[in-house]
Amino acid sequence: MKSVTVPRINGQRLWADLMALGEIGFAEGRGVTRTALSDADLAGREWLVGKFREAGLDVRIDAACNVIGRLRSGQTGAGLVAVGSHLDTVPQGGRFDGMLGILAGLECVRTIREHGMELPRDLEVIDFTDEEAAHNAGTLGSRAMMGLLKDGELERSVKQGRPSFADDLRKAGKDPTRIGEACRDAKEFTCYLELHIEQGARLESQGIQIGAVTAIVGIYRYLVTVEGAPAHAGTTPMTLRNDALVKAAPLFTLLPEWVKARDPEMVGTIGYLELFPGVPNVVPGRCQFVVEVRSQRSTDMVHIRELLKAYAASREGWCVETILEKEWTPCAEPLIQAVVDAASKEGLSCIRMPSGAGHDAQSLAAAGVPTGMIFVPCRRGVSHSPGEWTEPERAADGCQVLLRTLLSLAGQQQGEVGRVPHSGA
Amino acid sequence: MKSVTVPRINGQRLWADLMALGEIGFAEGRGVTRTALSDADLAGREWLVGKFREAGLDVRIDAACNVIGRLRSGQTGAGLVAVGSHLDTVPQGGRFDGMLGILAGLECVRTIREHGMELPRDLEVIDFTDEEAAHNAGTLGSRAMMGLLKDGELERSVKQGRPSFADDLRKAGKDPTRIGEACRDAKEFTCYLELHIEQGARLESQGIQIGAVTAIVGIYRYLVTVEGAPAHAGTTPMTLRNDALVKAAPLFTLLPEWVKARDPEMVGTIGYLELFPGVPNVVPGRCQFVVEVRSQRSTDMVHIRELLKAYAASREGWCVETILEKEWTPCAEPLIQAVVDAASKEGLSCIRMPSGAGHDAQSLAAAGVPTGMIFVPCRRGVSHSPGEWTEPERAADGCQVLLRTLLSLAGQQQGEVGRVPHSGA
Repeated sequence: MKSVTVPRINGQRLWADLMALGEIGFAEGRGVTRTALSDADLAGREWLVGKFREAGLDVRIDAACNVIGRLRSGQTGAGLVAVGSHLDTVPQGGRFDGMLGILAGLECVRTIREHGMELPRDLEVIDFTDEEAAHNAGTLGSRAMMGLLKDGELERSVKQGRPSFADDLRKAGKDPTRIGEACRDAKEFTCYLELHIEQGARLESQGIQIGAVTAIVGIYRYLVTVEGAPAHAGTTPMTLRNDALVKAAPLFTLLPEWVKARDPEMVGTIGYLELFPGVPNVVPGRCQFVVEVRSQRSTDMVHIRELLKAYAASREGWCVETILEKEWTPCAEPLIQAVVDAASKEGLSCIRMPSGAGHDAQSLAAAGVPTGMIFVPCRRGVSHSPGEWTEPERAADGCQVLLRTLLSLAGQQQGEVGRVPHSGA
Repeated sequence: MKSVTVPRINGQRLWADLMALGEIGFAEGRGVTRTALSDADLAGREWLVGKFREAGLDVRIDAACNVIGRLRSGQTGAGLVAVGSHLDTVPQGGRFDGMLGILAGLECVRTIREHGMELPRDLEVIDFTDEEAAHNAGTLGSRAMMGLLKDGELERSVKQGRPSFADDLRKAGKDPTRIGEACRDAKEFTCYLELHIEQGARLESQGIQIGAVTAIVGIYRYLVTVEGAPAHAGTTPMTLRNDALVKAAPLFTLLPEWVKARDPEMVGTIGYLELFPGVPNVVPGRCQFVVEVRSQRSTDMVHIRELLKAYAASREGWCVETILEKEWTPCAEPLIQAVVDAASKEGLSCIRMPSGAGHDAQSLAAAGVPTGMIFVPCRRGVSHSPGEWTEPERAADGCQVLLRTLLSLAGQQQGEVGRVPHSGA
């Protein structure tokens, strides 16, 4: 590896960007709501495109609405280094999850250009569309780019009556039938790097500044529909009811028991639930919810899936549909080591650790792109919440390690960065 | 009571109206969705105003958006006979609940005019706004007219982020601060009559054609909020979670047990439930739902309310707010008898029975207007569902009994119709 001189990123400028972007979709007490391709997300993207252009990036928006800013090196055929994450948030989310990775990439570009550095290959900063599952399974943009979308995924909306990804692509001026044009050859990418807040409390509690991510958690997600019979809540005797909520309720407390009994590191959640028609004076005719489990081991997730399917099969009116089965995805060892080295050269403490959250990085790694992730601590591990926070110094630390890592990787010969085997979506 | 000659109503014309109105807001497999002051409801009202005008009624829309059609008698100071119900539906409801009462009133007016009859007092046909609790407690229009709205009810929306009644009044071109102008003196009304499908299976199962309603069920309704802590569903260990759904779930199966143990005639329902932020990848930070109980006896409803409040008080993060406490409301005996007599003269079988559903009639009765209700059977008792149905002959029977009852009552001297004591909202 060539020795590189690494300039300092401007932490104040990065912070100012984070705070400015965090105003778009912000409401007092409710945090930031910029769900994918909502008006607020579109406004955020417009802001980002302006910032990308100011920084000298060529900007294009692909068929999946991914926003791609490219810093041209003048070298052709050398492959490219990509840095990315997502601008979209969960409803009532924070200012860092996703945004930090993109704005740090932007800050790296500015620093590189201000110091007149020329990279031996192109650099891309990418905002991937719908990481946060606004439409159904999430990481839609990064999976579209890697050719990992499933049949029917564009048209399907988990929440009945809400727009599908196809609907929202049309709203944003894209033709969903041309989504395939977003697909790129994984070999174009020399490597992919993503900086992110940890979204857990391990770094903070141990006083560590940088996490070098070793692998990204597996996620299995199922849509469960329990059918009852809608009926008048005043005239239907208790004994003649087929109440979908009453039928579904025991599972809400069973799921955490199953998960805890299997593995203390595993998690299981019902975060989305809807009743139909969902009004006080009608006995629920249908109860629909999403069961999600995450683990390092596929066998654990399969275990819970089978319990769930057996539970449903032994009851009347239950149906379980698979939304997502994404396996545990390892990062590329050379990139993990590059992050560890960069942290060390910056004088920052660093540990290797897995990610309990899913990320766009998973899509690129699954397609065989050598992938690395950098974590920085966030306050009390809180994320997907208005209370999500990280300190300006921690954001700047992460950005500095990102810059050093990408400069060291950009300087390598194509092929030097180890390719990991394709591990499935 | 004077002897009156009663012409035949036109059952085919009534049925054609029911089917035509039932197209507005209809979707295949989802029934009719015309929630109060939605675009579909506004379209339904416009259709109704046209029909009222065609039939020779003077139409006005009051400050609560109630649509009032008046057939003038030429007599002043004689009080009026009112017939009413509601055009609005629950989401995915049927074609009869509410609509039948108004369209039968309209058909009575046409029949009266076609036969050149002159009534000794004015007749009003009224479409009351938001009977079905689209905004919060329901029967908003009839309670506004009777001066029974509670402080803050206009501005409050049970479903967070949905428009309040005030918002929707503004949308419909009304000034919510002038809602008081909808209020009328109960003494204006000689009596109030409402024809409705039973929404239960008693008439059908016994082969009875007409129900003379003796009283309307009491309804208590509470908004329960269970607070947890929103957190990332991937990085928050099971043992560190404060999951609002897991906390709330045991009540969903307890409530029906409490209700069944108290009284087999009583009902209790959780029909509305929402999680916040309500997405698969966030541990629910809040679970909000409405507990509704209905009974003939206030003591039974108070019993469940106290169980609920004690349950909530002994747990962290629970809050119970009262939305509605409406007592069992008797109909006026002279009107019950008038319905029984009318059915008998029409050669129809009839029983006296209470109503398990709430109705606008309750608001007028609570304000002291002598009130009567006529029930007709509906298929298998199904209501608040796309499967709601009644036969054309049953609708026509009800309309004929309505006409005969109102002609007999309209012919009485003001004061002859017994006034019931005010029984509270």
